[in-house]
Amino acid sequence: MTYDLYIGDRTFSSWSLRGWLMLEKFGLPYRTHMIGLYGGTMAQDMAHLAPARLVPALQLPDGTVVGESMAIAETLAERHPQAGLWPTDAAARATARMLCAEMAAGFGALRGECPMQLQHVNAGFEASGPTRQDLARIEVLWSHARTFATEGPWLFGAYSLADAFYAPVCARIIGYDLPVSDAARAYCATTIADPAFKTWRAEGLKTVYDPFPYDMGTPTTNWP
Amino acid sequence: MTYDLYIGDRTFSSWSLRGWLMLEKFGLPYRTHMIGLYGGTMAQDMAHLAPARLVPALQLPDGTVVGESMAIAETLAERHPQAGLWPTDAAARATARMLCAEMAAGFGALRGECPMQLQHVNAGFEASGPTRQDLARIEVLWSHARTFATEGPWLFGAYSLADAFYAPVCARIIGYDLPVSDAARAYCATTIADPAFKTWRAEGLKTVYDPFPYDMGTPTTNWP
Repeated sequence: MTYDLYIGDRTFSSWSLRGWLMLEKFGLPYRTHMIGLYGGTMAQDMAHLAPARLVPALQLPDGTVVGESMAIAETLAERHPQAGLWPTDAAARATARMLCAEMAAGFGALRGECPMQLQHVNAGFEASGPTRQDLARIEVLWSHARTFATEGPWLFGAYSLADAFYAPVCARIIGYDLPVSDAARAYCATTIADPAFKTWRAEGLKTVYDPFPYDMGTPTTNWP
Repeated sequence: MTYDLYIGDRTFSSWSLRGWLMLEKFGLPYRTHMIGLYGGTMAQDMAHLAPARLVPALQLPDGTVVGESMAIAETLAERHPQAGLWPTDAAARATARMLCAEMAAGFGALRGECPMQLQHVNAGFEASGPTRQDLARIEVLWSHARTFATEGPWLFGAYSLADAFYAPVCARIIGYDLPVSDAARAYCATTIADPAFKTWRAEGLKTVYDPFPYDMGTPTTNWP
């Protein structure tokens, strides 16, 4: 029983990171396939996954293809009820779902202005007002999650899908040195210090994408 | 055991319609509360539901507040496994989740250009290219759903959460006379002919919102 996960890249594709964490962090068996996100072959590489057309896409062992991160998350959680993808407590679980859904459909300013990149810290970056509003909202949600938290450093105590959904947000806060509270910064530090995250980032930094359509600035070595 | 559902209005709030269908169509017990979507009191009306701040919001019998339609859907499905909120077949269920998630985060052109209104048919409306692309994508997803369908006129045969999520899309196709295939139009006709939908619309048309911030054109009686 092995899942087939289709991702774009590891350094810039925030959704790919989420999909991978959903499998890796809960010990689920998978193979990773990288599609040509930048080489003009994306549609061709994903043709056999239609109607899924974006990354991540997950192919189940029976061949069913699941696109959309919320659908992948719920499908995996349903198939592995003992793996702890959602918090055990029902109220915490409902709240975790709310946090993930708001992430999946929201925070347009932050996502547009601070595309995820795991290369370096963009020191001196000045966030716009709308991005600061997104950050304030994210802090409200994170604080709310902590009211349900059991022991542990993650949003709901133990690691859950909510942490997978917000990992790229943490990476943006680090990678653009965004202004957040000490508590939020500590959570971001926990996220990027996690062994799985570090493995993902290291793999990504080994990869050269050519052509690559974005100007992400000059990589430095100031990532914490 | 009763759910408390907070909605905006019935004629224009597409998300409110989705939340209500999730309860009404599956026979779940609920009370509806209307918050002041247009009167400037929305934040005040929803203060006790924080951090939920948008409609629909669902308060569970234990007091837990769930915002975000995908989270509401999954929470209800989990609490009522026999009520048939998701399709019974696992592959159909994964696919239904994908359709709902893509709706919850996508189709920005259609949603921006054709805000849901259940008043009348905007005959002669000319959809833009991006809206036509959204419609083409929706048809792909609907056709894909039908490959999993059991007997019945709904996306997956029997009524499911996917139909609740796409009901406002059907209302837009009807309400702006948008160009779709005969199969898609038949599905839209099924949606707006459903007794629950008709009840919702009739209730909405009885309500006058004052102040009301949008110019929705002159109501006519040409709704089918």
